[in-house]
Amino acid sequence: MAGNSKGKIRAGIMALLQALSMLCLVSAVPAETAAPVSVETAVCLECHETLHPGIVRDWRKSRHALTTPGDALRKEGLRRKVSSTQVPQRYKENAVGCAECHTMRAASHGDSFEHNDFRVHPVVTPADCAVCHVQEHAQYGRNLMAYARINLLENPLYMDLVRQINGSPTWNGTRISISRPERETNRDSCSFCYGTLVEMKGLETRETDMGEMSFPVLSGWPNHGVGRFNPDGTKGTCAACHTRHRFSIAMARKPHTCSECHKGPDVPAYAVYRVSKMGNVYAAQGASWDFNAVPWKVGRDFSAPTCAACHVSLLTGAEGQVLAERTHTMSDRLPWRLLGLVYAHPHPASPDTSRIKTPGGLSLPTDLEGKESRSFLISPREMADRRRRMMAICGACHARSLSDGHFRRLEHTVKTTNRATLAATGIMRTAWREGLAKGPDAGDSPFNEPLEKKWVEQWLFYANSVRLATAMGGADYGVFANGRWYLSRNIREMQALLEDLRARKAGRVGGR
Amino acid sequence: MAGNSKGKIRAGIMALLQALSMLCLVSAVPAETAAPVSVETAVCLECHETLHPGIVRDWRKSRHALTTPGDALRKEGLRRKVSSTQVPQRYKENAVGCAECHTMRAASHGDSFEHNDFRVHPVVTPADCAVCHVQEHAQYGRNLMAYARINLLENPLYMDLVRQINGSPTWNGTRISISRPERETNRDSCSFCYGTLVEMKGLETRETDMGEMSFPVLSGWPNHGVGRFNPDGTKGTCAACHTRHRFSIAMARKPHTCSECHKGPDVPAYAVYRVSKMGNVYAAQGASWDFNAVPWKVGRDFSAPTCAACHVSLLTGAEGQVLAERTHTMSDRLPWRLLGLVYAHPHPASPDTSRIKTPGGLSLPTDLEGKESRSFLISPREMADRRRRMMAICGACHARSLSDGHFRRLEHTVKTTNRATLAATGIMRTAWREGLAKGPDAGDSPFNEPLEKKWVEQWLFYANSVRLATAMGGADYGVFANGRWYLSRNIREMQALLEDLRARKAGRVGGR
Amino acid sequence: MAGNSKGKIRAGIMALLQALSMLCLVSAVPAETAAPVSVETAVCLECHETLHPGIVRDWRKSRHALTTPGDALRKEGLRRKVSSTQVPQRYKENAVGCAECHTMRAASHGDSFEHNDFRVHPVVTPADCAVCHVQEHAQYGRNLMAYARINLLENPLYMDLVRQINGSPTWNGTRISISRPERETNRDSCSFCYGTLVEMKGLETRETDMGEMSFPVLSGWPNHGVGRFNPDGTKGTCAACHTRHRFSIAMARKPHTCSECHKGPDVPAYAVYRVSKMGNVYAAQGASWDFNAVPWKVGRDFSAPTCAACHVSLLTGAEGQVLAERTHTMSDRLPWRLLGLVYAHPHPASPDTSRIKTPGGLSLPTDLEGKESRSFLISPREMADRRRRMMAICGACHARSLSDGHFRRLEHTVKTTNRATLAATGIMRTAWREGLAKGPDAGDSPFNEPLEKKWVEQWLFYANSVRLATAMGGADYGVFANGRWYLSRNIREMQALLEDLRARKAGRVGGR
Repeated sequence: MAGNSKGKIRAGIMALLQALSMLCLVSAVPAETAAPVSVETAVCLECHETLHPGIVRDWRKSRHALTTPGDALRKEGLRRKVSSTQVPQRYKENAVGCAECHTMRAASHGDSFEHNDFRVHPVVTPADCAVCHVQEHAQYGRNLMAYARINLLENPLYMDLVRQINGSPTWNGTRISISRPERETNRDSCSFCYGTLVEMKGLETRETDMGEMSFPVLSGWPNHGVGRFNPDGTKGTCAACHTRHRFSIAMARKPHTCSECHKGPDVPAYAVYRVSKMGNVYAAQGASWDFNAVPWKVGRDFSAPTCAACHVSLLTGAEGQVLAERTHTMSDRLPWRLLGLVYAHPHPASPDTSRIKTPGGLSLPTDLEGKESRSFLISPREMADRRRRMMAICGACHARSLSDGHFRRLEHTVKTTNRATLAATGIMRTAWREGLAKGPDAGDSPFNEPLEKKWVEQWLFYANSVRLATAMGGADYGVFANGRWYLSRNIREMQALLEDLRARKAGRVGGR
Repeated sequence: MAGNSKGKIRAGIMALLQALSMLCLVSAVPAETAAPVSVETAVCLECHETLHPGIVRDWRKSRHALTTPGDALRKEGLRRKVSSTQVPQRYKENAVGCAECHTMRAASHGDSFEHNDFRVHPVVTPADCAVCHVQEHAQYGRNLMAYARINLLENPLYMDLVRQINGSPTWNGTRISISRPERETNRDSCSFCYGTLVEMKGLETRETDMGEMSFPVLSGWPNHGVGRFNPDGTKGTCAACHTRHRFSIAMARKPHTCSECHKGPDVPAYAVYRVSKMGNVYAAQGASWDFNAVPWKVGRDFSAPTCAACHVSLLTGAEGQVLAERTHTMSDRLPWRLLGLVYAHPHPASPDTSRIKTPGGLSLPTDLEGKESRSFLISPREMADRRRRMMAICGACHARSLSDGHFRRLEHTVKTTNRATLAATGIMRTAWREGLAKGPDAGDSPFNEPLEKKWVEQWLFYANSVRLATAMGGADYGVFANGRWYLSRNIREMQALLEDLRARKAGRVGGR
Repeated sequence: MAGNSKGKIRAGIMALLQALSMLCLVSAVPAETAAPVSVETAVCLECHETLHPGIVRDWRKSRHALTTPGDALRKEGLRRKVSSTQVPQRYKENAVGCAECHTMRAASHGDSFEHNDFRVHPVVTPADCAVCHVQEHAQYGRNLMAYARINLLENPLYMDLVRQINGSPTWNGTRISISRPERETNRDSCSFCYGTLVEMKGLETRETDMGEMSFPVLSGWPNHGVGRFNPDGTKGTCAACHTRHRFSIAMARKPHTCSECHKGPDVPAYAVYRVSKMGNVYAAQGASWDFNAVPWKVGRDFSAPTCAACHVSLLTGAEGQVLAERTHTMSDRLPWRLLGLVYAHPHPASPDTSRIKTPGGLSLPTDLEGKESRSFLISPREMADRRRRMMAICGACHARSLSDGHFRRLEHTVKTTNRATLAATGIMRTAWREGLAKGPDAGDSPFNEPLEKKWVEQWLFYANSVRLATAMGGADYGVFANGRWYLSRNIREMQALLEDLRARKAGRVGGR
């Protein structure tokens, strides 16, 4: 009996120990074990862990340091994050470390340089990431963002706008003239988000703690713009959203990432989200959500969508059924391109919009009266497909009658804001016709005179803001913050300015 | 002795087990047990848990799913959240689930429809919530917000402003004309926050996974505006702040909820709060506060007020003494209505402001020179009472001399900003009198010409912003962000524009 | 054997208990033991814990309540936060409580008053804090912020700008006139951040729960402006950033604190940070960082800089090496003063900028053509030193070629934005010369006419915004939000307005 008793006690203690160890798992900070690092990465870490503790520590917390491509490949079904079916053997059983990303495909990288017996390239590109993430790379390649720089540079109208914004003004006592924008200005302005051209300009020698060493001189650097031209000939950078060196899916899913480029009045998606019901739920409760779960389970992992949920992520429902496929072609669920240039219109059919032309030869998807250049745009059927994909996500929380109502309202707003742009463009064209402003027909920029600036704000700021406010349910932004109030004020001021210009011309008092 | 020893060991193990279970409560995520659901709700959940996992999961985390009205009624004193003294027997011992809210009072709901043998209404209203929360419903009914839609629709001046903002412009080569705003535009603009008219327009049949089914067609839907007209004849929606289907007191207490409607330049309460010392404390430390505690204990549960703390919540001090009663009449602690229309003034005596008229017949609480229509406004004594109620909250952290100084400053700002509005209105009235702009006396809108737009911004944007910045200690917003700088710039521009108009009229060069 | 067995069991249980207690330390909220309080503080707490639970609770969570200066002095090396080598014996072994701060140096405090046998001063000043934090006090004394009020009050140009912004307008039917700003307005505007003059105006008697008592009447109160004039003759307040009564280093390290004064369009540091990559990392991951660690270890404690990391904090690397010394002279790592008044320029050599004069007698660091008054500004060598100090911080995460690229871009932006200011100033000087606007030469303010207002916005809003956007990598703010778009639009509007004024003068139609 004593033995029996002792046995029971022993069993009880074992149970306790077990309970304790389980408890430890729950209560302690999750202590994941690092994956083994390659010999090459170990060499990198030897110095760089001390030199750049910030990024190395960040990497150590990243999935890249905690697992191996081999293990990642062994994950089954929707939990799998590596989309390549094969990963080269040499990368398979080590962490994805410094050497893996910064020395692979060395021959292709124009910025690679000799560094302690390695051929290292500072600029890691989507082609590097594609070794493991081939599908995401392919999807992103069909994304407008990958073409951001091309679409800007090869569009003469856009480049004229860039020039008017980024050029340096000089006053000669009578009038302002604008110089061509300097390269460094463009890199710090439009190209910051659209992407710079990163080029290797040679090597420079620097005295370091490890003696004299050579380092590449890069132009257009730093930059993490979405359509960056890389020294290996590729476009874009995954680090725009999956910030190096954590490469976090959680961070990319949070709206702050998108806000880096989508907060200003031209495309105020984040500003609208913040005052929407969904944005409120995120702000108030997001701290308790699981932003790392793959797939991302509606209700279980999160309660209200962030930008990524609607536009990018793989989402599943209560029983694991797929509500939305993962896509890095961000417009896959977007029938309309709300960012009006000049008018909102069905999304472009190809991500390379530099080829789009109106019958009249303008590099725009619609002419100045709003007529769409249909052949360059997606079809009504494709629009319906995209809307259906989006509504499948709405459906995870909302009855169909609600989302029907929402999209009806959006279509209505597209129509009315385009009408407001038409009226503003009407004033503008009257001014050009009557010689009160000099437009393209007079061989001048349509973006440099005060009346033209107001015209630009009408569609680029106010109409866009109103549309985004409708699309994401953030009316506070769409009325007084930067929306309908300004839309209606601006057009009255355009009329008044036109009248001033007419009066000036008629009275010939002074000249503009 | 062995027995005794064994007994001690057993007692020790029991103590350990107890300690462990206590520990579990502390360290694990609080695993509250769900309350029993009614048969009816169980039927709903059978399909909807799969169809709409987002909202069902949210509801499962809500208090409504975790307790029963019966248990809630048994809570004593200030901890009690259910204010009705009786709850119908049939709702008492089950969770407050789908069927409870969406089928109760079916006969009153114009939007109820036959759905799998239930009579379901999609639009849950304050009258439904009032079954358990009768006092909050009554308080909210005395709230300006409940009357938001009425106060807008029945005020001809406000409706003229709505028209000028929401109407669609057309350019005929000479001038802009504005159409009457379309309904869908209003729903997406002012009515988004003020509330739409939600109406049942009939049924539509849709093919679903469960076969063909009928669903209501609702106009004015979706909407969660504070003064919504509901299909059961009631006004408002509790879900404006207590977001469905979590109905969280924590979320309503966080400032992001208020920001959905109070961030724009007309009423930038959230924008001011963000740069105030209190907003900073919330941003930096709020993650560690208890937003669910009832009553809300100053110092213990939170360290700096959010919007709700000052305007809504039941607050207690260190020894449980009540510092502020719970109120859903948001102006209960507000002597002044800082939102100047046109001038800041003592709060309206009745939440129904549509009846307010100046002696001259304007639908405003003050005439255009700022003279208050006293009979419609609260008395100086009531103002003092409200100030005292607010200062009791300040007193939880601040000495009286500090809050005295604060409120002295606020009174001063009300006076000086009203003076700035008076000057701007003086320019405006000069323009109307001299025929330089067409105002109400000339049968025209006071809100459509460029000078009038500037006048509106003077009081609606800049004076309001300055006052809110003072009221909540966010001077950064009240100076350069959208305050005194613009207040002073705008009035100079108004003068210059008036001079232009005079010059134009005198010189007869062109015409406006 | 049974005994042995029992012994083992007992040992096992002891081990378990030990494990449990360790576990408690991990899983429970860290329950730090309060330090002993002085008899005097105990007396304060007796009433004030009940009267002001908010601040007392906050203090109880503060380091001041949890440790004693004596213990703090015994900390070794970089972990030490108290910089005084000696602390008076009487303060050494008690918590830093109410009485310690609010009664020390009573004789020096003009606001001290008799209160229950204590001589209490409400306004705690940097000289009080310096008893323990002598170095921080000395550093802050060399900070521009400590001189904020002086530098404003004693600069006639700045005071003219204050007057134009804060004065009250009156309309007499023909023109606007501006009164001298009232004191209370200034306190609620510029002085809110720059600091008020806090003065003891006497005592007032109030009925309290403890009977009739006397309290000081303070003017200029409340205020926590960085350059406040205190009743003990000192300048500034530590509570501007280390919010009373928590005095938290964590809060001061978070960017929201800086945003209280640095978010508006004149100095939009926080707004830029929010859309920068660094701001994104903070927003997405900051909740898991250790903001209390001293020293602040890059990578280990945090992954991306906040304002404090780059401008104030003591930072160490992976092996404890110092990357940046702690400084409360905020410009220690700043070569350029980006806040252009009128032009961006090398930082002032002395924090007292009131003595700066151009050769022409303007109270500005550059003349109106941008020529620097070199003798008042730091030398190129000092600029290089400061840049080097900042780049040592960049180096914790970034390769040298990246930070070189970044700073090259910043220098470029300083140059181009100064050029844009030069062009705008050219228009302005043309207008003054031709009598189209009345400037200082005509004995009038350079800040009151519409053209002058536009000139101010050119440098104060747009050029500053562009520079801050470059400096912190937040291009979204620097282009459309409040940057280059407006910079380029504004100068065109300035030209158009100048032409209007010329036309008016030539035609003599009306007069301005």
